[in-house]
Amino acid sequence: MRIGVLTGGGDVPGLNAAIRAVARRAFQYGYEVFAVKNGWDGLVQGALEPLTLRSVSGILHVGGTILGTSRTNPCKSPGDLAACIAHVREEELDALVAIGGDDTLGVAQALWEAGVKIVGIPKTMDNDVPGTDYCIGFNTAVTVVAEACDRLHTTASAHHRVMVVEVMGRYTGWVATVGGLAGGADLILIPERPCTLDFICEHVKRRWEEQGKSFSIIVVSEGAKIYEVRGEEELGEADEFGHVRLDRRDIGKSLAREIEKRTGFESRAVVLGHIQRGGSPTVFDRVLATRFGVKAVDLLQERQFGCMVALRGNEIIALPLAEVTGRVKEVDLELYDLAKVFY
Amino acid sequence: MRIGVLTGGGDVPGLNAAIRAVARRAFQYGYEVFAVKNGWDGLVQGALEPLTLRSVSGILHVGGTILGTSRTNPCKSPGDLAACIAHVREEELDALVAIGGDDTLGVAQALWEAGVKIVGIPKTMDNDVPGTDYCIGFNTAVTVVAEACDRLHTTASAHHRVMVVEVMGRYTGWVATVGGLAGGADLILIPERPCTLDFICEHVKRRWEEQGKSFSIIVVSEGAKIYEVRGEEELGEADEFGHVRLDRRDIGKSLAREIEKRTGFESRAVVLGHIQRGGSPTVFDRVLATRFGVKAVDLLQERQFGCMVALRGNEIIALPLAEVTGRVKEVDLELYDLAKVFY
Amino acid sequence: MRIGVLTGGGDVPGLNAAIRAVARRAFQYGYEVFAVKNGWDGLVQGALEPLTLRSVSGILHVGGTILGTSRTNPCKSPGDLAACIAHVREEELDALVAIGGDDTLGVAQALWEAGVKIVGIPKTMDNDVPGTDYCIGFNTAVTVVAEACDRLHTTASAHHRVMVVEVMGRYTGWVATVGGLAGGADLILIPERPCTLDFICEHVKRRWEEQGKSFSIIVVSEGAKIYEVRGEEELGEADEFGHVRLDRRDIGKSLAREIEKRTGFESRAVVLGHIQRGGSPTVFDRVLATRFGVKAVDLLQERQFGCMVALRGNEIIALPLAEVTGRVKEVDLELYDLAKVFY
Amino acid sequence: MRIGVLTGGGDVPGLNAAIRAVARRAFQYGYEVFAVKNGWDGLVQGALEPLTLRSVSGILHVGGTILGTSRTNPCKSPGDLAACIAHVREEELDALVAIGGDDTLGVAQALWEAGVKIVGIPKTMDNDVPGTDYCIGFNTAVTVVAEACDRLHTTASAHHRVMVVEVMGRYTGWVATVGGLAGGADLILIPERPCTLDFICEHVKRRWEEQGKSFSIIVVSEGAKIYEVRGEEELGEADEFGHVRLDRRDIGKSLAREIEKRTGFESRAVVLGHIQRGGSPTVFDRVLATRFGVKAVDLLQERQFGCMVALRGNEIIALPLAEVTGRVKEVDLELYDLAKVFY
Repeated sequence: MRIGVLTGGGDVPGLNAAIRAVARRAFQYGYEVFAVKNGWDGLVQGALEPLTLRSVSGILHVGGTILGTSRTNPCKSPGDLAACIAHVREEELDALVAIGGDDTLGVAQALWEAGVKIVGIPKTMDNDVPGTDYCIGFNTAVTVVAEACDRLHTTASAHHRVMVVEVMGRYTGWVATVGGLAGGADLILIPERPCTLDFICEHVKRRWEEQGKSFSIIVVSEGAKIYEVRGEEELGEADEFGHVRLDRRDIGKSLAREIEKRTGFESRAVVLGHIQRGGSPTVFDRVLATRFGVKAVDLLQERQFGCMVALRGNEIIALPLAEVTGRVKEVDLELYDLAKVFY
Repeated sequence: MRIGVLTGGGDVPGLNAAIRAVARRAFQYGYEVFAVKNGWDGLVQGALEPLTLRSVSGILHVGGTILGTSRTNPCKSPGDLAACIAHVREEELDALVAIGGDDTLGVAQALWEAGVKIVGIPKTMDNDVPGTDYCIGFNTAVTVVAEACDRLHTTASAHHRVMVVEVMGRYTGWVATVGGLAGGADLILIPERPCTLDFICEHVKRRWEEQGKSFSIIVVSEGAKIYEVRGEEELGEADEFGHVRLDRRDIGKSLAREIEKRTGFESRAVVLGHIQRGGSPTVFDRVLATRFGVKAVDLLQERQFGCMVALRGNEIIALPLAEVTGRVKEVDLELYDLAKVFY
Repeated sequence: MRIGVLTGGGDVPGLNAAIRAVARRAFQYGYEVFAVKNGWDGLVQGALEPLTLRSVSGILHVGGTILGTSRTNPCKSPGDLAACIAHVREEELDALVAIGGDDTLGVAQALWEAGVKIVGIPKTMDNDVPGTDYCIGFNTAVTVVAEACDRLHTTASAHHRVMVVEVMGRYTGWVATVGGLAGGADLILIPERPCTLDFICEHVKRRWEEQGKSFSIIVVSEGAKIYEVRGEEELGEADEFGHVRLDRRDIGKSLAREIEKRTGFESRAVVLGHIQRGGSPTVFDRVLATRFGVKAVDLLQERQFGCMVALRGNEIIALPLAEVTGRVKEVDLELYDLAKVFY
Repeated sequence: MRIGVLTGGGDVPGLNAAIRAVARRAFQYGYEVFAVKNGWDGLVQGALEPLTLRSVSGILHVGGTILGTSRTNPCKSPGDLAACIAHVREEELDALVAIGGDDTLGVAQALWEAGVKIVGIPKTMDNDVPGTDYCIGFNTAVTVVAEACDRLHTTASAHHRVMVVEVMGRYTGWVATVGGLAGGADLILIPERPCTLDFICEHVKRRWEEQGKSFSIIVVSEGAKIYEVRGEEELGEADEFGHVRLDRRDIGKSLAREIEKRTGFESRAVVLGHIQRGGSPTVFDRVLATRFGVKAVDLLQERQFGCMVALRGNEIIALPLAEVTGRVKEVDLELYDLAKVFY
């Protein structure tokens, strides 16, 4: 067998661990393995090169992706999808392994429908791919968040202050919830649970009045929905219910500013940004990526195509791509509620 | 309700996270919570003191245990067990939460049989408590192991050498297997899979001859069983089959010495020892410990005693203590075999 | 002798190491040591409590300050300064050790002029206190910056992008220069070296055209001076030369936006903020803080007051407070120029 | 100019930072730069290859050495030294930069005496090269030691125990002294300050009796000299004074065993070994290595040969190789005595 492997979308720690696992397992089966460069863009262009034992050596613990990546989506242009299919044939690739998030897996599904043999591996620090308990990159991202909270906590005894930590999560609150739970957050704000500024400010004040705590760490998803009933102050355009939502483009800073204005507590924002997707993967992500990579090739060997590997409990299973694409997995609300025990 | 909480056996990162979770959940239910000092020793002596919101604040990320611990086992002396029961009554404790490994949980079971209401929480960096997928402390320990392997790998391009990394695991190979898998070990040796020195030396030589790799990292459990068919050299007392086992008291060093003697490759040992049980818990251990602690108190609230909380897939469940004590959970051999893909 | 010790201004890692050193050395001399709570505020209020061997135990590696801190400056109100002096007498303090930056040391100088025996210890992550090569907290801050750059670099092979890292440094470029040098920055922008947007964009484009590098990491001090000759676009109010300066309130984001607009390279900002002042101190800061603390008490013992301890090469020396307050030490331009070798 | 660069002896973090600095500065001057592979061995064999901008890119933060290294010492065989000189001529190398410890620098001096233009850069985690305040690799090594002490301290509140941490330092106590000072060691034992077992055991007991501390962390150099006056028990061969020295081959374990036997305190050893020389260099080592590398090339450009770059206070200076080779720089006893304040 000749197979290709590619990584699409934003890079996360653990991609190289998955690539190494795909290649090593494939070598065991006697396959030839080709790097498709820069995500789908490399398949559109036909940019392939062989992977060897040496080229996947020493990369297990390294962030980024040796394959390069891009946000190119060939589904958006009929010519591009056709070019992908043509290059699969030209290069005589028997199958593909596509590592990526919802967007990448959607293309994989389209190619599968067009007859290309393909298996997907879910990665996204947002952890919102349906069907799998965890995606590659998520555990490392929440580790960065928890460590940032630890650092901010060491100043707790010294200052009297609200710290707002803005973390990734445009549509779901996974990073905020698990990172905040592990980082000892005093309040977690996520897209799945809209709330009002009043609620937040009351919470900060109650901590001070009831628990004597003059310090609060608030972890907020970049996509959190924070509203205010329209009044004297406007936060932006009102929605259909007359509610006004805090500007999401810079939610950490906006929230810190509003809290300071309304409670009088000095408030500061920290925006973690891209450091959440850099660095060396955690043990969890290394093991997960390794298991995913080996399983993906096992599926090829068993001629089980058109599916995505997934973690279900402790098992690595296979799911039809059609079942997992085009949707978003919302946060586990049990975890979210668990965090409230410690507010 | 008045409840006591204690930690027994060796300390691991995540104990404080569990203590905090027990206390905070208990406060929500309106319980009074008492610290039993230094494991079962504190119950034998009647050394208790109240826990407050303040005393469990700021400890989530801190290693060790604020309760102290000991290896005292009251089951070994009838008077001690009676003293425990007497102090539970005297202090009017309605129930206990005992956090520990097999030894601690065995005492919990004995007290439960004697009528003390009790719930157990499994912790051990060895991860060998039956019934639960993971125990508190394990993920942090394997993270230390993987990071040590990373450090040793950076010298790979510079030297030509065998590095033997001795890790914890007297009876089971969990730490070696997962730490080695995540650390990119080139060979993992565990108690569950005895092997011979010949096999090990052949492996090192084959890596050199077939893959051109003059560097090997071997991760070995302290309790690994490494034999040699009796010949000119003796490694110690022969067993019933005439096999001689490598001295386990210092297995890392002994193994490095034997490899160097037999292969000619320069070999060195690193013995990680107690640094595997120190430091700040990982996100995985923080979340696990938090979930365990909250669930343990929920069980008390539901008057479900005599059981241990456990992780099964993604769920926290309850198991009868009687089912989990006195046995050891061997390593997941699927994971062990997975690691061989990368040898 | 009865002495007081306090920490003023923003907290940095290493304060506790200094407090421990002051207390332990003082105990050796047989002094009584008192914690002045929350910086100068505690002296204004008379909030003191004794320090013991136990209270300074286990704090060497912990961030924050066990004394608390504040930005209270009693020089701004004559009554406050008088209250400080009164409390020194009332509490029968023979001398004070004040740990802080320019503001705190200025108050120390004022008290010394008013007859209070005092010694200062310089701390500031900005490293801009004159007379000392390094201040407590600086090395830890630049370590955070360098690690953030490392994380961002791991994505370098995957994306084609400009990353702007905004770091502390309102008046001087120490953190940006040393953090950027150690983090492999491709451009460093500091207050001491104003530049234009054109220069920055040309640099980014030249890296692409001449070195084939589509990825740049730019480290920028929060107080960097970035101008544009007035033209069609305005960045804000023009200064006396008709130059317009990039808004400093949010310089990282503004700069990323301008670079993207002008070069077409996708650009993102990371604002490290308060995580630069949290966490465990580095070895450098622990040793520096320990040496400073011991030396400060040695000066008290030698009855050498009104001075600040300072690092000069490898020596800890004493300088008159009068010489070091009210001024700012600019960045070492040799280091700044050294970084250019790697642009 | 055509220059060669090589790394000799054991690898330490920071070598790649120095190599990158040498190459980048040399490219600025328009030099051609050649990698001499595997230390002096590569010069004996004539194993050279060109370095490019690309080959030194992305290595600043990576441990190990991209050049490879070896312990080959051509001074031990006249033919080897002649081969080195011949290859310098054949390859038309105008000058060499040799990065290494005492052994490597001794060869550099021999080559210089033989007419080869050469500059040395000091690296050794032992920090015992004379003439320079610090060597590349030392700060990273002591950071590993201090972090190990931190980890061990977190168990302090839980157990009552003596932990012996064996660190590198065959002839000098630099790593033990600075690592122990920064890690809060309760006793530091180094080659420069021989002591008796009685002294050590008394210290442990006194901490318990006078300070109530049942936990001690003892940091010991691998080459520490620990004696016992000959008595009933023998530790080994007596020296000329009738003193018996603790076996140095395994000093950490031997010491732990003796302490437990004599004091009754449970004692354990941790042997850090090669993890002290792995991993990513600290900011201090990155900046030092960068400054050393740039300065070494500046010396070549100024035609100042036969010398070693060195850190003196904050300055990078040049010293004749003849002055620094063949000797060892003992530990700064002021630092050693400083640590005693905290025993």
